[in-house]
Amino acid sequence: MTIEENRMENEAAIRELIDRFAKAFLAKDVNGVMSVFAQEIVSFDILPPLQAVGAETFVKHWQEFFESYQTPIHVEFPDVSITASDDVAFSYCLHRVSGTLKNGQQTDWWLRWTACYRKINGKWLIVHEQVSVPVDLASGKAMMDLKP
Amino acid sequence: MTIEENRMENEAAIRELIDRFAKAFLAKDVNGVMSVFAQEIVSFDILPPLQAVGAETFVKHWQEFFESYQTPIHVEFPDVSITASDDVAFSYCLHRVSGTLKNGQQTDWWLRWTACYRKINGKWLIVHEQVSVPVDLASGKAMMDLKP
Repeated sequence: MTIEENRMENEAAIRELIDRFAKAFLAKDVNGVMSVFAQEIVSFDILPPLQAVGAETFVKHWQEFFESYQTPIHVEFPDVSITASDDVAFSYCLHRVSGTLKNGQQTDWWLRWTACYRKINGKWLIVHEQVSVPVDLASGKAMMDLKP
Repeated sequence: MTIEENRMENEAAIRELIDRFAKAFLAKDVNGVMSVFAQEIVSFDILPPLQAVGAETFVKHWQEFFESYQTPIHVEFPDVSITASDDVAFSYCLHRVSGTLKNGQQTDWWLRWTACYRKINGKWLIVHEQVSVPVDLASGKAMMDLKP
């Protein structure tokens, strides 16, 4: 395989991982979501704390998040940029998350998502990610209503 | 060079880049800061917009940021985690930014910083980054006062 073919194969594998992640997210399938993350995941998520370290901590995070919605969660990952070498990769995109929270609030957020991958025993996994929105420093508010 | 020596050399080069970035940040040196970013940088910064695309847009961002401080900006990047292959890499850490804004407000923030790199013509550059704090969804406030 040429270097270019190898790169394309790795990028395709990561695209397939993101598709699986999106499907599990939509189905509120905690095990499906967790299957794309490494045991040693370090997450800088949009919800506190500053960082969630390790799959055992991170799974609770997802459970609470999914439980906070009364409806299915609509998720889109359009225009994902993926860059991969043989065993290290990253991806980033703006991603849309919408639905109705248990408190009745309808949400429609565009979040920034960066994911960092390693190929471990022949399998790509997310070892680090960050999810956020910008901050309006004057008011201290998180800017949850920005659109691309 | 063995694969392991090669990896260590690449990780050392990225550590040196982060040191240069930290020094330029501290000195409010816009050109020094920009020298670590690729022309095609896509930044998901803590300040709006959702994304800043390209060095021409991004440089204005840094100018405004530096001008918003009346004092030098104290910056720390402790415990940076770096993962590098031959031409793709990522790093992440909590980083501390403190100083006094022009409006008199003293700030002392712990931010989450993820940076994604490519080696382009033999030189490592940041092609993507994300900087943020978590959000308290109940109040809509950005959590600027969290400490690790």
